[in-house]
Amino acid sequence: MTTKSALSSKLALYLVTDNRFVPEGKSLKDVVESAIRGGVTAVQYREKEASTRKMIEEAGELRNLCRSCEVLFLVNDRVDVALAVEADGVHLGQDDMPLHLARKILGSGAIIGITVHNDLERRAAEQNGADYVSFAPVFATSTKPDHQTPLGISGLEQLVRAATVPSVAIGGINLDNVEEVYKTGVDGVCVVSAIMGATDPELAAQAFLERYNRARAHH
Amino acid sequence: MTTKSALSSKLALYLVTDNRFVPEGKSLKDVVESAIRGGVTAVQYREKEASTRKMIEEAGELRNLCRSCEVLFLVNDRVDVALAVEADGVHLGQDDMPLHLARKILGSGAIIGITVHNDLERRAAEQNGADYVSFAPVFATSTKPDHQTPLGISGLEQLVRAATVPSVAIGGINLDNVEEVYKTGVDGVCVVSAIMGATDPELAAQAFLERYNRARAHH
Ligand code: NI
Repeated sequence: MTTKSALSSKLALYLVTDNRFVPEGKSLKDVVESAIRGGVTAVQYREKEASTRKMIEEAGELRNLCRSCEVLFLVNDRVDVALAVEADGVHLGQDDMPLHLARKILGSGAIIGITVHNDLERRAAEQNGADYVSFAPVFATSTKPDHQTPLGISGLEQLVRAATVPSVAIGGINLDNVEEVYKTGVDGVCVVSAIMGATDPELAAQAFLERYNRARAHH
Repeated sequence: MTTKSALSSKLALYLVTDNRFVPEGKSLKDVVESAIRGGVTAVQYREKEASTRKMIEEAGELRNLCRSCEVLFLVNDRVDVALAVEADGVHLGQDDMPLHLARKILGSGAIIGITVHNDLERRAAEQNGADYVSFAPVFATSTKPDHQTPLGISGLEQLVRAATVPSVAIGGINLDNVEEVYKTGVDGVCVVSAIMGATDPELAAQAFLERYNRARAHH
């Protein structure tokens, strides 16, 4: 179990999985393993289609991988899957289990993050005991086309400044724009396609981490 | 929490919900309420499409309804939803969470049922601590067209005779065939469309219960 004090640094480069980006002939585990070699600090298992049995199998594999590499491992939405594989916690959306119920079920030791789209949702998340918040979406994205209006860099900056818990940013983040995202002071970035869909996920993760270090060195 | 000793009688007429059968202008709760007035003894909330938030809302309503009527209330597949609404337990399929993990998470007091298609699956379920088994499918059904070969009455009879825990039967059961199903000695029947899709779910449930009593009186 990752201690909460170390959470902000554990969120620096946060991979969100999506089986649709796994190339033929490779498994989700292969891609995540490669991304971890490249320096990913946290992994969120996100799966909406598979059976619960299949989710537990896949998440269990990633869980073991992350444990041995000291990478934070969270499950998107599914508190049952998180419990079954003994994940470090869950990441909730606004349509997922209410935060207070997830906390009641998972206990105080679990890490619970939540996606927020504005300052109202940020405050509610913090009041309900979120360990971190995920600001979404920074940019327009094809992964979640039904999303709300992008925050943009200045919108993100305002939310980051107001946050009283560690924060990450998600939505359309790639190698070209990640440095300005890090410069908002956000603790980490969530990446889906720019690593999952990269020809070499290890190199992609390394490149993100270089930009993280550059942005941090600059301040 | 329903005591396990009373389980077999609580399974007599077991409604499995399906939002696709809810008529326009009515809610799932309306239909279930009507079915309970007609004598349904157990309700299983089954929902595969909605968000977790929506599932918890709907299941929470049914949970309260069932509690006040002393009707058993289980959640299909989703251990997280069952925990969130404090259901009596879960009903698992072969593609859902493995039974031993569900037991570990829900504890010994929870009622855990599992769908089985043959004697091998029945024995595994009993060895893993299932509180009841659900034999499926008795007849061919349009609700689950991807199902296995129907057991038929004689196949069901063999499984019921071998079972060491309470059992129910599911799949294509309607008012015309339910009496012969009950006569196999099975503790209960699961009904989806024949009650959910009835013009008057209360009357439909009453008619099922009459056949239950007739079959029991007969032996
Ligand atoms: Ni600067």
